Amino acid sequence: MQTIQDYIANHKQRFLDELIELLKIPSVSADPAFNQDVLNTADSIKNSLEKAGCDKVEICETPGYPIVYGEKIIDPKLPTVLVYGHYDVQPADPIDLWDSPPFEPIIKETDIHPEGAIFARGACDDKGQMYMHVKALEYMTQTGNLPCNVKFMIEGEEEVGSESLAWFVPRNKEKLANDVILISDTGMIANNIPSITTGLRGLSYVEVEVTGPNRDLHSGLYGGAVANPINVLTKMIASLHDENKHITIPGFYDKVEELSREERDEMAKAPFSLEEYKNALDIDAVYGEEGFSTNERNSIRPTLDVNGIWGGYTGEGAKTVIASKAYAKISMRLVPNQEWREITELFKNHFESIAPKGVKVKVTPHHGGQGYVTPIDNIGYQAASKAYEETFGVTPIPQRSGGSIPIVALFEEELKSKTILMGFGLNSDAIHSPNEHFGVWNYLKGIETIPYFYKYFTDLSN
Amino acid sequence: MQTIQDYIANHKQRFLDELIELLKIPSVSADPAFNQDVLNTADSIKNSLEKAGCDKVEICETPGYPIVYGEKIIDPKLPTVLVYGHYDVQPADPIDLWDSPPFEPIIKETDIHPEGAIFARGACDDKGQMYMHVKALEYMTQTGNLPCNVKFMIEGEEEVGSESLAWFVPRNKEKLANDVILISDTGMIANNIPSITTGLRGLSYVEVEVTGPNRDLHSGLYGGAVANPINVLTKMIASLHDENKHITIPGFYDKVEELSREERDEMAKAPFSLEEYKNALDIDAVYGEEGFSTNERNSIRPTLDVNGIWGGYTGEGAKTVIASKAYAKISMRLVPNQEWREITELFKNHFESIAPKGVKVKVTPHHGGQGYVTPIDNIGYQAASKAYEETFGVTPIPQRSGGSIPIVALFEEELKSKTILMGFGLNSDAIHSPNEHFGVWNYLKGIETIPYFYKYFTDLSN
Repeated sequence: MQTIQDYIANHKQRFLDELIELLKIPSVSADPAFNQDVLNTADSIKNSLEKAGCDKVEICETPGYPIVYGEKIIDPKLPTVLVYGHYDVQPADPIDLWDSPPFEPIIKETDIHPEGAIFARGACDDKGQMYMHVKALEYMTQTGNLPCNVKFMIEGEEEVGSESLAWFVPRNKEKLANDVILISDTGMIANNIPSITTGLRGLSYVEVEVTGPNRDLHSGLYGGAVANPINVLTKMIASLHDENKHITIPGFYDKVEELSREERDEMAKAPFSLEEYKNALDIDAVYGEEGFSTNERNSIRPTLDVNGIWGGYTGEGAKTVIASKAYAKISMRLVPNQEWREITELFKNHFESIAPKGVKVKVTPHHGGQGYVTPIDNIGYQAASKAYEETFGVTPIPQRSGGSIPIVALFEEELKSKTILMGFGLNSDAIHSPNEHFGVWNYLKGIETIPYFYKYFTDLSN
Repeated sequence: MQTIQDYIANHKQRFLDELIELLKIPSVSADPAFNQDVLNTADSIKNSLEKAGCDKVEICETPGYPIVYGEKIIDPKLPTVLVYGHYDVQPADPIDLWDSPPFEPIIKETDIHPEGAIFARGACDDKGQMYMHVKALEYMTQTGNLPCNVKFMIEGEEEVGSESLAWFVPRNKEKLANDVILISDTGMIANNIPSITTGLRGLSYVEVEVTGPNRDLHSGLYGGAVANPINVLTKMIASLHDENKHITIPGFYDKVEELSREERDEMAKAPFSLEEYKNALDIDAVYGEEGFSTNERNSIRPTLDVNGIWGGYTGEGAKTVIASKAYAKISMRLVPNQEWREITELFKNHFESIAPKGVKVKVTPHHGGQGYVTPIDNIGYQAASKAYEETFGVTPIPQRSGGSIPIVALFEEELKSKTILMGFGLNSDAIHSPNEHFGVWNYLKGIETIPYFYKYFTDLSN
């Protein structure tokens, strides 16, 4: 029977070409200008699933972008794996910081990726990692190596909050019934240090608007006499952290899970070089909450970051104006047990309460989601761990991620099954940034590893 | 001999039509995209001065935009008035807040302007007020009422710092020799309360850039672990004012002119309604330095305002990114005796000194200028006062303005003559804002008043 290694050797170039075609479609869900491209991407995924051997594939309409569903049921008595991924991507801007156009994929070698990496928006997050599962399925169906049932659910709004998925899942519990959910939308420590993500942070994303005078004003005639919305906004945002970088929103930390000294010591064993970290980002120092390490700050601790700010004159040269309005997009990463809707409410009430006289403040919640933890004694985790051992030759390290996949908590609530996060990307792949890329080696290694997960999960399910 | 009143009555429509044509040219000096329009405006001014009766008109090249010079010398033994104005305008954005296109002038009635106002960028600042002088000259030359010599110097970089004028003036002291400088680029209290500006604030305008990581980062994977340039920028800007709204830059207030109780009481006599002020701006409270009134805050006190801020994702929807860079444009209004280059240096040193580890900070000075005061016993001021009495029927009030005309201090230094600021605009004319306008009544009243200044200045010079 043909091994996955042989199959990859025979079809490697086609696997790359197909992904590159998929990456050419600018499926930016955040920007209505790309509406048709997002829809075209859904069609493309549908075709890929059919070619890969799914018996039944459908584009499921939702209040927003459609969800592509596909399944291959070989025997109802066998376990079922539900694969989740997303076909939408982050906006590409700032475009001018890309070395090559974000939607014209090219393969280039890098220090970390000597076998080349595919540079394109969505290469890693999540088209590349999602497509590994499609190609793994192709191998299993073409060579008679599919040991259990499989379902695919690929959505188009992950980068904007998965609202339509949250609408779709509760309405399709029967269709989505499964024994484990498999997702590749996270990373691993290094190509020689595989890791499996066991924790995710939650998220609360809001937009704030500060309005001062009812029109832009001449800063000479009014300067110093009226509240300048930009100055006020900077003061309000600055006050959200104290001198120890703790977040000052009352009640923000009330439900934060406090890890034991033992758990923190265990985490600290993961290989990490602060020097390499600083050099990779070209910073002279890290910056964050007092009393926690860099790896703790970006995984087990909640945060508050401004993701965008704008107001007044931002063009060439000088304009002596006092703007009528100033805006900011602010997101908070949350840890397990923090309820995102409650945190959003705490932020809204606090931010409105600190507005000085002379301005009006509006807080608009964008979206959010819960944090999540996978126990490592779960058979899904065990199957994944064995799969990595087969293909990497070492046991993967369980790792908390600072990122968020809000719908993972929803899956557990609605579908009563655990999610296994098998990520093959690297932190250096620049997801959400200019020059996002995904290693060719990582892409093929993912395709190689996934079938072993199916094998071991089926075995362990008996 | 024909009076100015008769002359205006006969030519009123043409005076309006000519100004409207001038306002159609988008002479935005801050934006290179309008380069040709700015140059075309200079040509248009040259033609207007020739038509108005200047003997010699020339477009003087400079390192930047040209300066239009014109003169009518009737007798070297008579005094000479030098008229200064500018043909460039502020950028029009935010365009979408204009009720009519900024460069398609229309005349509309308003509560304050029952005889109509011309709505267009530059209507008041400064094309409209500058053109009053051109039409006043036309009257005086056409009707034999020019009592002295006159020179015009109209520049194209006032809105971006008048650098070329600062280069031009010292090199042309002979050509520009005069007995008084006359400018209409300020406002008056109200149509029934004429005022003459006797003080101007100085200006220091800088741009700041805060750089954190060398690329945009995923806020989940890095959030909380690295300095976020936007969060840092807000903290740095917020720290520039203390809880009493005093500016915290060391040495900033050292040379600030402290007015006596008497002077402040005199100022307080100018008619002012805080309620009307707040209602006009739709704000529930004013905001500014403790211990000073609104009129003091925007005239005799220095300020620090953010004129623009930007960084990260500012498009539609949400993007969970930590930006690599954040920017702000910041201007400080200065009072007489504060040296703008020194203040710029104080700002630069202080701002760089408060940058936390983990970011790099760059401060780029844009431009600046000195504050200025005109003594009211000066014969230029006396002549202006009498002129207003003739046409308004009341004595104008001397007033400190919060605005800046940096080159006024330069004129005194280089040309050894005082500047008289006869402004006919109103604070409500929205200069530098969307829907800038200039009252038709004000435009014609300016043309009517100016010839009297020439008459009285010539008389008082004997």
